[in-house]
Amino acid sequence: HFLFDVVESASSPQASCEGLYFGDGRRKIDYVLVFNHRRHSSIRSASASVSRAELSVVSNGNFPPTARSDAATGRGQPASVGEVFMELGNARGGEPMEVADQEMQLIRQEFEANLLDAGLEIERDREVKAHGLSFTRIHAPWPVLCREAEFLKVKVPTKTVIKETGFGSRLSSVWRKLNQPFQPKVFHQDHGSTKFLSHYTHTHTHTHTHTHTHTHTHTHTHTHTHTHILTTMVCVGTHYTLIAKGVYDAAFPLHDVSVLHEEWARYSAFFKYQPIDLVRKYFGEKVGLYFAWLGVYTQLLIPASIVGIIVFGYGVATVDTNVPSLEMCDDRLNFTMCPLCDGACDYWHLSNACGTARASHLFDNPATVFFAIFMSLWAVLFLEHWKRRQISLSFSWDLTGIEDDEVNTQNTSGVEVGVANRSKIFVVTIEKLTWKDRLPGYLVNISSILFMFGLTCSAVFSVIIYRITISALMAMNPDPEIKSNVRVTVTATAVIINLVVILILDEIYGYVALRLTELEIPKTETDYEERLILKAFLLKFMNAYAPIFYVAFFKGRFAGRPGSYTYVFNNYRMEECAPGGCLIELCIQLSIIMLGKQLIQNNIFEIGIPKLKKLFRSLRDKKSTPKERDEEKPHQWNLDYALAPFEGLTPEYMEMIIQFGFVSLFVASFPLAPLFALLNNVIEIRLDAKKFVTELRRPVAVRAKDIGIWYNILSGMGKLSVIINAFVISFTSDFVPRLVYQYMFSPTGTMDGFINHTLSYFNVSEFKPGKAPLNSQAGDITFCRYKDYREPPWSSDSYQFSKQYWCVLSARLAFVILFQNLVMFLSLMVAWVIPDVPKTIVEQLKREKKLLVNLFLQEEKEKFQLIQSFFVKDATLQSDSQVPNPSQGLPLPGRYSTLPIGPTAGDGGGGPRARCRAASFSQFSGDLSSLPGKENSNSKHTAV
Amino acid sequence: HFLFDVVESASSPQASCEGLYFGDGRRKIDYVLVFNHRRHSSIRSASASVSRAELSVVSNGNFPPTARSDAATGRGQPASVGEVFMELGNARGGEPMEVADQEMQLIRQEFEANLLDAGLEIERDREVKAHGLSFTRIHAPWPVLCREAEFLKVKVPTKTVIKETGFGSRLSSVWRKLNQPFQPKVFHQDHGSTKFLSHYTHTHTHTHTHTHTHTHTHTHTHTHTHTHILTTMVCVGTHYTLIAKGVYDAAFPLHDVSVLHEEWARYSAFFKYQPIDLVRKYFGEKVGLYFAWLGVYTQLLIPASIVGIIVFGYGVATVDTNVPSLEMCDDRLNFTMCPLCDGACDYWHLSNACGTARASHLFDNPATVFFAIFMSLWAVLFLEHWKRRQISLSFSWDLTGIEDDEVNTQNTSGVEVGVANRSKIFVVTIEKLTWKDRLPGYLVNISSILFMFGLTCSAVFSVIIYRITISALMAMNPDPEIKSNVRVTVTATAVIINLVVILILDEIYGYVALRLTELEIPKTETDYEERLILKAFLLKFMNAYAPIFYVAFFKGRFAGRPGSYTYVFNNYRMEECAPGGCLIELCIQLSIIMLGKQLIQNNIFEIGIPKLKKLFRSLRDKKSTPKERDEEKPHQWNLDYALAPFEGLTPEYMEMIIQFGFVSLFVASFPLAPLFALLNNVIEIRLDAKKFVTELRRPVAVRAKDIGIWYNILSGMGKLSVIINAFVISFTSDFVPRLVYQYMFSPTGTMDGFINHTLSYFNVSEFKPGKAPLNSQAGDITFCRYKDYREPPWSSDSYQFSKQYWCVLSARLAFVILFQNLVMFLSLMVAWVIPDVPKTIVEQLKREKKLLVNLFLQEEKEKFQLIQSFFVKDATLQSDSQVPNPSQGLPLPGRYSTLPIGPTAGDGGGGPRARCRAASFSQFSGDLSSLPGKENSNSKHTAV
Repeated sequence: HFLFDVVESASSPQASCEGLYFGDGRRKIDYVLVFNHRRHSSIRSASASVSRAELSVVSNGNFPPTARSDAATGRGQPASVGEVFMELGNARGGEPMEVADQEMQLIRQEFEANLLDAGLEIERDREVKAHGLSFTRIHAPWPVLCREAEFLKVKVPTKTVIKETGFGSRLSSVWRKLNQPFQPKVFHQDHGSTKFLSHYTHTHTHTHTHTHTHTHTHTHTHTHTHTHILTTMVCVGTHYTLIAKGVYDAAFPLHDVSVLHEEWARYSAFFKYQPIDLVRKYFGEKVGLYFAWLGVYTQLLIPASIVGIIVFGYGVATVDTNVPSLEMCDDRLNFTMCPLCDGACDYWHLSNACGTARASHLFDNPATVFFAIFMSLWAVLFLEHWKRRQISLSFSWDLTGIEDDEVNTQNTSGVEVGVANRSKIFVVTIEKLTWKDRLPGYLVNISSILFMFGLTCSAVFSVIIYRITISALMAMNPDPEIKSNVRVTVTATAVIINLVVILILDEIYGYVALRLTELEIPKTETDYEERLILKAFLLKFMNAYAPIFYVAFFKGRFAGRPGSYTYVFNNYRMEECAPGGCLIELCIQLSIIMLGKQLIQNNIFEIGIPKLKKLFRSLRDKKSTPKERDEEKPHQWNLDYALAPFEGLTPEYMEMIIQFGFVSLFVASFPLAPLFALLNNVIEIRLDAKKFVTELRRPVAVRAKDIGIWYNILSGMGKLSVIINAFVISFTSDFVPRLVYQYMFSPTGTMDGFINHTLSYFNVSEFKPGKAPLNSQAGDITFCRYKDYREPPWSSDSYQFSKQYWCVLSARLAFVILFQNLVMFLSLMVAWVIPDVPKTIVEQLKREKKLLVNLFLQEEKEKFQLIQSFFVKDATLQSDSQVPNPSQGLPLPGRYSTLPIGPTAGDGGGGPRARCRAASFSQFSGDLSSLPGKENSNSKHTAV
Repeated sequence: HFLFDVVESASSPQASCEGLYFGDGRRKIDYVLVFNHRRHSSIRSASASVSRAELSVVSNGNFPPTARSDAATGRGQPASVGEVFMELGNARGGEPMEVADQEMQLIRQEFEANLLDAGLEIERDREVKAHGLSFTRIHAPWPVLCREAEFLKVKVPTKTVIKETGFGSRLSSVWRKLNQPFQPKVFHQDHGSTKFLSHYTHTHTHTHTHTHTHTHTHTHTHTHTHTHILTTMVCVGTHYTLIAKGVYDAAFPLHDVSVLHEEWARYSAFFKYQPIDLVRKYFGEKVGLYFAWLGVYTQLLIPASIVGIIVFGYGVATVDTNVPSLEMCDDRLNFTMCPLCDGACDYWHLSNACGTARASHLFDNPATVFFAIFMSLWAVLFLEHWKRRQISLSFSWDLTGIEDDEVNTQNTSGVEVGVANRSKIFVVTIEKLTWKDRLPGYLVNISSILFMFGLTCSAVFSVIIYRITISALMAMNPDPEIKSNVRVTVTATAVIINLVVILILDEIYGYVALRLTELEIPKTETDYEERLILKAFLLKFMNAYAPIFYVAFFKGRFAGRPGSYTYVFNNYRMEECAPGGCLIELCIQLSIIMLGKQLIQNNIFEIGIPKLKKLFRSLRDKKSTPKERDEEKPHQWNLDYALAPFEGLTPEYMEMIIQFGFVSLFVASFPLAPLFALLNNVIEIRLDAKKFVTELRRPVAVRAKDIGIWYNILSGMGKLSVIINAFVISFTSDFVPRLVYQYMFSPTGTMDGFINHTLSYFNVSEFKPGKAPLNSQAGDITFCRYKDYREPPWSSDSYQFSKQYWCVLSARLAFVILFQNLVMFLSLMVAWVIPDVPKTIVEQLKREKKLLVNLFLQEEKEKFQLIQSFFVKDATLQSDSQVPNPSQGLPLPGRYSTLPIGPTAGDGGGGPRARCRAASFSQFSGDLSSLPGKENSNSKHTAV
């Protein structure tokens, strides 16, 4: 009788939006299960589509407590629910069905009976159609949520207002005003100054039940908790296996978008902060953390972009005063360079390469060194900042209590949902596997990954071969027009080929990683996710960066020297870098791959393909159920089912992490990378938001306390970036040779003569037969020059590496050591100086602890008073009405008086919650206060 | 009435050891406060020493609950304890006293009144003496401990037996048997297989009070908790300030050594594991963690020592086949070396340096490179292993719940006790200091530390000057006997001077760090401790390693070359390394400083000085109170007061960390360092144990969840060791030049001719006037040789660094980069592969969680039954005897039925604790079960 009362008042009564509620318009639909009756199982399809408005609401009434908690802990033994089972299941059981379908039907029935058994309420369309979609809508009544909250330790909020005073408050109010235009218009933005006090112990159930009538004003706060608890109840263990086995086709909560559309999932809101709290309430912590992380990353890209622009500006400003590029452009210096190809090419003048030299200076100047150090520290700063933000979030979202094993075993995370949906073979194995069982899987894994490495390398090598052969062929072409465009044409086409290969392999590698991880049979689902991510990351990282690594560290280093070039296929000379240095080529490669990947992946993969898929799905659905289309208005669950299933966050994270690599790893060669990343991300946030809100089914709210393995990957990339940038600066750029020249070899102490110093001599008479220019127009030339540090032909050990070479090499290596250790030291300092936990949080935690102690004292006191009042009454009554066993009853009140019964503990700080509890207990003691007893005088002041 | 009963049964009744109990022989002395009546305040000293046996036991009887918890939370308002105050205080108040003393007396009285007020019991000697020592002995009755346990969340143990089965168990039993001789004989060693289940909630108070009669069998388990709680009660806030102000002279718990003496604090137990659990119970977690850490460190030194011995053995075995040292010893090669000093010294043959060359090979061989990598990984492994051990300990000691802020604000750690005792000026400031207040302190700090750096450097430089001048003077000495011993004499004396300087500066720096930290006025005591440790570590580290750094990286690099030597004071040539390389000198320096420091600090500072202090103190005490010496047997508190106060763990840790530096930082030069460290530590453990048990007052048990900042320091040293070892191998040893020669310059591809290759030529005609040997017996010499890579005199750029030089330099630098990144990568892998939390602990935690859920269900059920039975009874009685307000009492049982009342939740796994609680609750329900009510049938099966 009274339970029903609770249910009625718990469900929100403003039922107008019909799509989101049960037929009675009061009970909200928290979750939807879908299965599709296949046509082949029945031929009577015409009889459907009529009585859709009639609903069979199945309520489980007053279930015994035994069954309830069994099901809740996931052990679900169907006990004494036979009649419910019957009612639910075979409403139209008379039809002929295939065996598998019938089995599925039975599984569904049993599963849904268990749900009812656990206290959930189910609504279904009357079983009128034997094919097409069938929706099972689930509502969780309040008491069930309360009970589950116990097990999940969901915290009950107690409001405590924290005031800022003095100068700090004035400053922060100014800041708030300045920040106003960037804030999303969300209806309560006061979570900065107020915070809910959380408290764990099981006594809360009382509070739940007593106070839920008040909490209706707080529905917003509870929405998320709602969904989450329900998910846990419905999903644990069996659920996804059911999907994987094809018992159900889909399972999702319903979309209920309101503010998110306006303030978040719009491109025009690009300049605003994200309403992260709303996102978290709607999608759960896991998705909330992703967007929070993306927000922090994008925000921190702003200073990096600004510094990058300044550094680039410095390059532009100094290009006309830079001695090396001036010398290269100076016609008077007249360096005759050795030919770029055998036979067909002629000697050439260095001043022809003036353009690349000037372009090279834009990216290869001393400011780049500063920028590389800056970006390494920026990466550390970003990670530290995110750590702090994560702690702030986990504090304000109350994630601190989530334990690891809970995440491991109980929560089924979004990624697995995707996997289950996609592959339908993901089965959680429970029995323990020995290493013998696992060995083949691991072997296949290792060999596959090695094979993929080989594949990537050969792809890179193929592109190199392409470049070499095409440029050789074009150089032999007699047409001077073609000849002059060799470098531009070849580079452009090669990079585009590279890009296409990367994009194709990216998709393949994602699939391979999935298959390989399944082979490993990981133990827990977190384990599965981590292995998958790690493998996918390794493969995709290698894929995206292999060509860039080649250009940065290998290109031109195996070319040999005039008279002794390296040849591939006996005919083609290995490619060399442009005369301005390899850095400019690295820069081109990097920018094209980065921009191309982002643009193409954003536009085609993230917008185009989902749209195509949706179109295809709706076409197919239209074909299969053409008669039902002519309804007046589809239900929300129909609309949501038409959306694409949520496939997990891995692709989103992966894209951003690869981008982070472009921003951090080779940033020394391309200072504008952060700017491009920033522009991309500003769009990316809204794009992802739109996708989540309108393109995908609403994901199950998953709790997560951090971003998991992604943090480790980020931190690993941060570490890697230090050493890579050190090598880029010292080996790819000309920074170190310039320094060495200026301070060791320059006769004047300036850069004058640097170009001459970097060019070695070659005696043209030593060209092997047929390798010298066939029809040279350069006149009589004895020596041609080439870029290397080698002994001149007249030296005793001609063409050996010169002393300068070793000297420069030492300097380069010393620079690497210096740079690496300096940056590592600075990073450690930065990480050490920035505290992981923000100061405000520390203070807040202290305050919370104090409040908890007060609450605890209050509760102890109330409990004591309650029990004592009973005993007093008991004793009084016993002496009055002669209840048996007075001797057994007596020792207890004595023992209880040794409880730590504090006073009100000052300040009455227990908050509304404590007061509420006091009120409820005073209902016990209030009606007893008229009885004799010395303790009752104490209980009066707690009564409200 | 009943409270007293509890107290009586709580205190252990086996009172025979009179020193440890109150006069009644039943109540144990948990804590002692001491103050010393100074003689000047009174002249009536003769009337003492008579009625010592008579004791005034002050019991505070039945205090009101209000005052109790006020005092417990530290706000101690003396409420209605006026008569106790009187009784305690001015028993002999009629005497003339100085004002300050009288004030102190008043503070003492108030403080002790507060203690009584908080429920503690106090025993004092009758106030018969106006001078000399006066002891206040404190006993904490059981209920008080229970109450405090609530606030500290001390956990109540619930035993759960965990069985191992199958192959694993057989293996582990074999291991246990093998390990038996190394295990200390402690009476229960089963903590490996059984574990107490911990549980936090406040309902425990019931359990305490109900079950404490059983727990007497477990006194051992609780001893520690006891002391700790008491300390917290007595000490928080006021206590140490009182000592600092001189109100009390000392405050300590009493020694009660039993098993520790036999199985731990003996040298003959050196081969055994430490009984860490006992140590922790006796001294508290902080000391327990120190010894556990020391144990882990010592244990892990065993493999390091073995590998070190093997590496050294490899050096010994290959010394006769090593080409470079054979070439150096070969008389036929006849290298004429340039003189070692100007004028007085003659040319010499390299074969004279044969001895050092052979010795050098012992430490400078390829195995050393392997050893350096091994030791870097060892350091990582050690840290990872310790992390695991720490987690295991914090699991089995239940430290997981200790929060940071608790440590910060509530616990007064041992170190501060020492500080307070020593300096008497450490006052915790509460008001907030601005940066303006702090700036001078920081400035003084920075400048002082810089000054100390300078001091250390100048000390090192002085020793260099000493070496240069003395060797120059000795070289000029005509006596050939003296001349031949130059190097040995100078090196030996210089190292000893270095050692003495280090030892002296070490003491000074410890004092300076203390003073500087006080200047900073840190906010919390943890903060204070961390700053102090960091500063002391910085100074002492620099002090210990500065001379070693000099030898490793600077010695011989500024010597110049023949014809252009570097001179200091215009007269003395900078010193060069021995012909065998600097590594052998580094090795000598390292071994002497390491061994000397350990031997001298262990013997003199740790054994000698405390013994002297004790002697001095006892002499002084004898002088001041000569008449009281003729007693029959001193009380335990007198004995303990005679011991030295506990000064904190900082010196112990510091010694070990500096030693860890010797083992890890320069291990490439001295593979035997781990062996010496191991030998030292085996003794050190027992030495420290003896000191803690017999030489020092028993420290206050302090809770700590880890070893704090020491871990960071260790980890920092691990990181530093990688780069230092890389530099030692590549720059100090000859490893890289040998490799370069073999693979780049050797005509045969072997090491033959290496020595010739490393020696440059000098044309003796180019000696500056007066610098050439004055009376050379070498005949006509055109060229002399010196160890460097420079161009020969006949080259165009004579005496410039040759191509070989730059080539070798590049190789050295490349080696550093390779080594550093390889080792860092391997370290990351090792740290990644080893899980932080041991597998057994993870499993145990899961099991515990399950048990807790069961417990929780059980408790909920009991609570529900209890309340419901009351209501049922209430309703029955109301209908019987017409108690007013039946309408108000009714809604509640209904609401309570929505509680999550589970079944017994299977397996009855709540353990004895749950059963015990069930029993206690069945006392409520048992006598009510005869009443009508549907729920009572459920309660039956929980009754015992």
